[in-house]
Amino acid sequence: MTRAELFAQIQQKSSFLSVGLDPDMAKIPAHLRSESDPIFSFCKAIIEETADYAVAYKPNIAFFEALGSKGWETLQKVQEFIPKDIFTIADAKRGDIGNTSTLYAKAFFETMDFDSITVAPYMGADSVTPFLEFREKWVILLALTSNVGSMDFQLIKDENGKPLYQSVLEKSQEWGSPENLMYVVGATRGELIGEVRKIVPDNFFLVPGVGAQGGSLADVAKYGMNAHCGLLVNSSRGIIYASGEKDFAKVARTEAVKLQAEMKVLLEKYL
Amino acid sequence: MTRAELFAQIQQKSSFLSVGLDPDMAKIPAHLRSESDPIFSFCKAIIEETADYAVAYKPNIAFFEALGSKGWETLQKVQEFIPKDIFTIADAKRGDIGNTSTLYAKAFFETMDFDSITVAPYMGADSVTPFLEFREKWVILLALTSNVGSMDFQLIKDENGKPLYQSVLEKSQEWGSPENLMYVVGATRGELIGEVRKIVPDNFFLVPGVGAQGGSLADVAKYGMNAHCGLLVNSSRGIIYASGEKDFAKVARTEAVKLQAEMKVLLEKYL
Repeated sequence: MTRAELFAQIQQKSSFLSVGLDPDMAKIPAHLRSESDPIFSFCKAIIEETADYAVAYKPNIAFFEALGSKGWETLQKVQEFIPKDIFTIADAKRGDIGNTSTLYAKAFFETMDFDSITVAPYMGADSVTPFLEFREKWVILLALTSNVGSMDFQLIKDENGKPLYQSVLEKSQEWGSPENLMYVVGATRGELIGEVRKIVPDNFFLVPGVGAQGGSLADVAKYGMNAHCGLLVNSSRGIIYASGEKDFAKVARTEAVKLQAEMKVLLEKYL
Repeated sequence: MTRAELFAQIQQKSSFLSVGLDPDMAKIPAHLRSESDPIFSFCKAIIEETADYAVAYKPNIAFFEALGSKGWETLQKVQEFIPKDIFTIADAKRGDIGNTSTLYAKAFFETMDFDSITVAPYMGADSVTPFLEFREKWVILLALTSNVGSMDFQLIKDENGKPLYQSVLEKSQEWGSPENLMYVVGATRGELIGEVRKIVPDNFFLVPGVGAQGGSLADVAKYGMNAHCGLLVNSSRGIIYASGEKDFAKVARTEAVKLQAEMKVLLEKYL
């Protein structure tokens, strides 16, 4: 998917919502557990009810991988079920030496047909650039994550006072463009999103940490939005586990509608 | 597997060889391609011929993942075929927020029964520690990798002149012990292995980059060996693709024997 197509969808739906698919057998409603593929049934129902309000779906690969080869079959079914005009994110946090990264890229871009994959930057250029060689596919590079551990290394300042995440942003600008490179930028640090935006004015950010993880959607939009919106704000648990009963998909829809309504206001304000 | 068990095996075999399993359909001998699971047949033959000389096997997960759910079935079969007294490394380079890392750990330590997994440090403590909570299982943390891109971030010096990889080594010492935490340390930088050894005297290193990637085994042993050997030196292509013909497994054995013979000399010299 191109940036123009993604932006068109954002405008059409007045939404920059990504719905995170973290399907946990212990958390999905009990009545689904007797189905032949409960995880697929769960994701399918969530997608059907939220697709009008979401511009992206982000399956968390670990939740599928934990189920072994069966989980990979389910992941493939889920990917194929997502409407083709909606952006898909394989949240896999991969990254290895060149020929190995190429294989990960093939796994998610060819064996499956995801639009994008999250990638870890620690191993540098040759671990990231193989993912950027696929046409109309995207890298979403970890820059500033929203977890507590992000402070361990990402905020370490170099000899010139520049934190590591800024080096990741700057260096990676040589590898990709706003047409194929996004960044993971956590929402738990409202003001830092503004700092990141100054360094990379044009790239999209994937923002986790709104809702269950405590970030403010208004702050994210205030500090992070650009002329192409430039934001995909993800909510996982706040939507998919809003109800653990038979009404889970309808309640997920209600939560998605609420977020979309907030996003519509923010798009009108800042775009 | 415990560190004592691993060390006992090293002494018994006079070897610290890890054989990397990077099975690529385009590179395996043509006569295997008509089999029902060529990748498994290939790995099985390699393991049968090299098991007397190797103390570890390191399947590169990307090569299996690129084949989708079928690849995961093959990976599981390969893991189960490796003799139980040999250390197994899932070279997966995973790492995510806490509950997600726990799921990756379950995928490799419970759904499958690997002894260890390679983990990327960028997201910090809560991305790594979930893997350390599994009894007799190991994290092999990326510290100083052997690829060109390792220079992009791993060598950035902080305000006190300390490179990032040293911060990773020092910080992670708070998370695990030499009984459950190893480090990836590239062999292309002989003298740097000595620097790493000073910081973490007791932990095992997984050393890629010997052979095809150009590092010197003698230098690795000189700078890196400790009283428990403390080294697993990996060779992938140099062994498994030494011949592309019907004799591939026998030739792999010959290459493994050569490396083991060199290692025996080095163990006698330094241990």
